[in-house]
Amino acid sequence: MEIDIESPHSAAWPGIIQRYKRYLPVTADTPVITLLEGNTPLIPAVSLPRLFGVDIELYFKFEGMNPTGSFKDRGMTLAISKAAEEGAEIVVCASTGNTSASAAAYASRAGMISTVLIPRGNIAQGKLAQAMMHGAVVVQIDGNFDDCLRLVRALAEERPVAIVNSINPYRIEGQKTGSFEICQQLGGRPPDYHVLPVGNAGNITAYWKGYREFFYNGLIDRLPRMIGFQAAGSAPIVRGMRIDKPETVATAIKIGDPASWKSAVAARDESGGLIEEVTDDEITHAQKLLASYEGVFAEPASAASVAGVAKLSRKGFFPKGACVVCILTGHGLKDPERAIAIAEAPARSSANIHAVLDLLDRAVEARKRHSNP
Amino acid sequence: MEIDIESPHSAAWPGIIQRYKRYLPVTADTPVITLLEGNTPLIPAVSLPRLFGVDIELYFKFEGMNPTGSFKDRGMTLAISKAAEEGAEIVVCASTGNTSASAAAYASRAGMISTVLIPRGNIAQGKLAQAMMHGAVVVQIDGNFDDCLRLVRALAEERPVAIVNSINPYRIEGQKTGSFEICQQLGGRPPDYHVLPVGNAGNITAYWKGYREFFYNGLIDRLPRMIGFQAAGSAPIVRGMRIDKPETVATAIKIGDPASWKSAVAARDESGGLIEEVTDDEITHAQKLLASYEGVFAEPASAASVAGVAKLSRKGFFPKGACVVCILTGHGLKDPERAIAIAEAPARSSANIHAVLDLLDRAVEARKRHSNP
Repeated sequence: MEIDIESPHSAAWPGIIQRYKRYLPVTADTPVITLLEGNTPLIPAVSLPRLFGVDIELYFKFEGMNPTGSFKDRGMTLAISKAAEEGAEIVVCASTGNTSASAAAYASRAGMISTVLIPRGNIAQGKLAQAMMHGAVVVQIDGNFDDCLRLVRALAEERPVAIVNSINPYRIEGQKTGSFEICQQLGGRPPDYHVLPVGNAGNITAYWKGYREFFYNGLIDRLPRMIGFQAAGSAPIVRGMRIDKPETVATAIKIGDPASWKSAVAARDESGGLIEEVTDDEITHAQKLLASYEGVFAEPASAASVAGVAKLSRKGFFPKGACVVCILTGHGLKDPERAIAIAEAPARSSANIHAVLDLLDRAVEARKRHSNP
Repeated sequence: MEIDIESPHSAAWPGIIQRYKRYLPVTADTPVITLLEGNTPLIPAVSLPRLFGVDIELYFKFEGMNPTGSFKDRGMTLAISKAAEEGAEIVVCASTGNTSASAAAYASRAGMISTVLIPRGNIAQGKLAQAMMHGAVVVQIDGNFDDCLRLVRALAEERPVAIVNSINPYRIEGQKTGSFEICQQLGGRPPDYHVLPVGNAGNITAYWKGYREFFYNGLIDRLPRMIGFQAAGSAPIVRGMRIDKPETVATAIKIGDPASWKSAVAARDESGGLIEEVTDDEITHAQKLLASYEGVFAEPASAASVAGVAKLSRKGFFPKGACVVCILTGHGLKDPERAIAIAEAPARSSANIHAVLDLLDRAVEARKRHSNP
């Protein structure tokens, strides 16, 4: 028989808690609230290294293929499971959108009420739709993410609610499993460079923790350099100062006062890495390249990592043959409005074959003329 | 060491062509254009059987966790790989949105030009954003899906293009791998009932083919009953007649003249199954239940399968203990506008703790009062 029921991929993936439980703060008594998150693909680049003019082995860890469409599910399955273990009935978080979507989804599965504070007018449409559909109490705050986070902390002092923001330590623990998967998907080695967007800075902290745990347990024999990118209008770590009014098209990293600032700097310094910035134009260009040459549609914040690889490539930063993994934190479907705004508008035609042929012939010609950027 | 690098989930999932190549029409010479599609989770229901008042083992095969957010990627990886093998430079399809998103993504990865015809005003926003971002030549046709499909057939007679609509036989071949995964995820058995939405009817055809191949090769010892649901305003198979102006909120199955009509009827009859209809209200209600009790956000068409399970449950259709798998064909993020339209609107507050507390206390009270539908 060619397909063996007992073959490697026959056992159903159990979600990150069951898979990595010995590395996580859970016991046999912890209820596991899971949507079978994790196990996201490590997609090899087919075109971008050539376009960037570098000879590197480039991969995209597409975290947009988690159940709610972002890496937040890794931390949330653990945060909500622990909240359930502790008897919580209400969870609360501040969010630029991905955290609230994830919190709302997992809380609904756990039978809890979720309340999410989001900055008004600064959240991608898909993320708002998610929190609403998953039955969260959604409050749009006249303020930015940092205001929302301050309110969440104040709220938790007044009411018996579990905070599931990144200040919840279980979030980082769950998120570190992304590193475990990368090492396993690469056949038992870390990448040379781990590149990711930096907003609230929980993710760079988590990935670094994951790599170190694999290293200290002898599962990998070296550590990657951690390379973070902030958006230029929202780059407190790069600038070394809090940004009161952060601005960027990449709403998921539009954060002026990151909760995990210190640990992000530690990850950078301990790994011999970098935290730099990319402009909104560079982010937008990278998002388009990723979608139109690699077939991967990631949200703007995710594209910051790819924009960063482009920028460092221009500087001759990567040695030949280096293994580089870009984290794509969320799916492009999270923010369709932004995509429609930056992409070429559709043509329109009557349902007549001659009209359609004429239109397509011209469009295909134009496309062929511009087939390389 | 607790995590074995050589353990079942360490080998990277290679996508459906590599995984199931002996069951697919490929050779060692076929270029594999993959985004590592497939390997989608089979999520166990935690609340809906109780809400529906039935004692069944219910699972959701969440095809929204494919790279472009729908099951279409399974067929498209094969269709585009075969088009590449045959030297095609341009691919074309008609689509209610999911097919065009997938075609555009895989074509971009293959370095081909994709052209997609979509019905104007009848496509979910996320899907439009995808085709545009993946660099397709997008033409909105003043007509419905059936008009678009007629134009595609006419187009292919005039120009050297590869059609990647469901009339392309490789699509069905790729899509059948969903059945293989379900059997493997259930530990080597099929479900008793396989429930799915029916639009163009390629998917019911494909799943039935997959189950039969596993059965005839001795990998499973019986076959499931195939249970399809159409939207009431777009139910040509149920009504036994073509619908000239199909209407439904579930745009992905808004099809009046299904391409795979005959094979869908064969799947139903050979398996001892059913093809019935559910109303838009039932679809919307099921979509909300799925998101707010199970934590799974699926697009409206997907919810037709869950609405169908609710309907059959009310009739006492399922025997006690039956294993029922619902296919959730696409992610809810495909259609955020629809979700925002049907969910409760967010509250709004100043960034003041007392205002927020007051608002949350009232919302939580209301939520508790309505905690069961």
